[in-house]
Amino acid sequence: MDKRIDWNAGAAWIAGQIVPIAEAKISVLDWGLTHSDITYDVVPLWKGGFFRLPDYLGRFEASMAALRLSIPQGRAEIQAALHAMVAQSGLHDAYVAMVASRGAPLIPGTRDPRSCGNHFYAWCVPYVYVIPQDVAARGVHLWVAKDVHRIPETSVSARAKNYHWGDFTQGLFEAYDQGCDTAVLTDHAGNLAEGPGFNVFAVSGGRVVTPRDHCLQGITRRTVLEICGEIGVEAEVRDLPLAEFLEADEVFLSTSGGGATPVTRVDGRILGNDRAGPVTERISAVYRDWLLSPRFRQPLIAHA
Amino acid sequence: MDKRIDWNAGAAWIAGQIVPIAEAKISVLDWGLTHSDITYDVVPLWKGGFFRLPDYLGRFEASMAALRLSIPQGRAEIQAALHAMVAQSGLHDAYVAMVASRGAPLIPGTRDPRSCGNHFYAWCVPYVYVIPQDVAARGVHLWVAKDVHRIPETSVSARAKNYHWGDFTQGLFEAYDQGCDTAVLTDHAGNLAEGPGFNVFAVSGGRVVTPRDHCLQGITRRTVLEICGEIGVEAEVRDLPLAEFLEADEVFLSTSGGGATPVTRVDGRILGNDRAGPVTERISAVYRDWLLSPRFRQPLIAHA
Repeated sequence: MDKRIDWNAGAAWIAGQIVPIAEAKISVLDWGLTHSDITYDVVPLWKGGFFRLPDYLGRFEASMAALRLSIPQGRAEIQAALHAMVAQSGLHDAYVAMVASRGAPLIPGTRDPRSCGNHFYAWCVPYVYVIPQDVAARGVHLWVAKDVHRIPETSVSARAKNYHWGDFTQGLFEAYDQGCDTAVLTDHAGNLAEGPGFNVFAVSGGRVVTPRDHCLQGITRRTVLEICGEIGVEAEVRDLPLAEFLEADEVFLSTSGGGATPVTRVDGRILGNDRAGPVTERISAVYRDWLLSPRFRQPLIAHA
Repeated sequence: MDKRIDWNAGAAWIAGQIVPIAEAKISVLDWGLTHSDITYDVVPLWKGGFFRLPDYLGRFEASMAALRLSIPQGRAEIQAALHAMVAQSGLHDAYVAMVASRGAPLIPGTRDPRSCGNHFYAWCVPYVYVIPQDVAARGVHLWVAKDVHRIPETSVSARAKNYHWGDFTQGLFEAYDQGCDTAVLTDHAGNLAEGPGFNVFAVSGGRVVTPRDHCLQGITRRTVLEICGEIGVEAEVRDLPLAEFLEADEVFLSTSGGGATPVTRVDGRILGNDRAGPVTERISAVYRDWLLSPRFRQPLIAHA
């Protein structure tokens, strides 16, 4: 193998080939780009094993079905592509993305999405912490976006994982302008929705609440809810009004890029003692255990 | 020049080079793709001349400012890139796109849009009719989407031209399922918004109305309003409720890909006589004249 290639920067599986991440490109005419007509999923690879891979693959398939995307590869081929690509990269802790795009029309000039050649590709890069580790350690300073609300389900459903991030990007700029680390968005009725790359949880009187609508049905969110069941913490999935959120004892984020991550300030208000709360810490510790548990883990298949 | 290259399929200006359209690609890590954090504009080239190029360039600059995108090229360099690229393609009637993307973070793993290297590219392909010419000739059969509403301004502003088309794509599938040619979306209050690639107009009692909000401030839309002023047709920009729209004498679409295009059926109801109405036909004819008028036209600069 050519030693000048920096495989550790990441790799991609695209058009049937495994290539270094820097060479993974798509056409500027692809509707995945020009119409954001695309879905994706991201499975964490941790210490050489995929976490809950069948769950991520299942959600990816559901997203494709919701968007009427149909790719040539079935689940076994997708899984084989992910294993081969990650093995080639040499990474042991990675952010592993699988993507299905509408593609470009087979007849130039057509505006009909049914005329496009849908296609699959995948890529991996070193593990991404959605919240940097130093920020997670001191607790996230969260901003509730004021000038922008989450795209409603009645326009683009957050249940099919998508790249429509214009609202998140605007919320992030608002958060940075306020000296905060990241932003969470509310829906148009004033209930909490989600943030860029994470679901949100509030803890009040020992009970955990997470929003039901206008958010991704996160697999880390589901894992947190299952952990609550196992450790005997009551958990609810329902509307979470902003006023209730602001009065919570604890707030935390859930993301495949870092697990359950404590929030210590919301809009500048200090929660608890400016430190992670006890419920957050318990859930976070169990999540770290589960990441390595054989129950959810699929080790990388060694390649020749 | 290599005669095997099919320049007539289109050309692109990307990273300072002019390349055949098939070679124009961007990284799968570019946030223009993964966060749809990107803006664009499209200027029509008609019989060797750009139409209203300064207006399109001005809107592109306003879109970039709204999204806090900053590219190295100023207006003169963008304009020079468009002329050189189109000249290389040999096209005389073209769809000419200019794009500004957030780019990828300069430090891998960062989630901060301020850390990205924003970049400009452009591409052209043979002129695209948003409504195929045979459909425009018989009149568009339009579907008002029922299951999806236009993304609200309070989530992602349609005023900064963007690739957030998930709502349009879903509306198009709905239209095709109903045997219609294309779809128009309403906002969440039940007023008309816009369709995929076009603004919409209703004509009632000789007066023209087009929606004010949740739609692109289209340059063809503006041209239609200016034409109304010149030919003495009263025109209003205001909320257009669905009930009023369905009772209109005439309906037409405005798009840089075809001008003022008659709609003859809405949700299967026949308008007028199943033919273009007189106001639509007058506006459409004037638009075709203006396309070639020196008042709005910037001929292609010949290259050595």
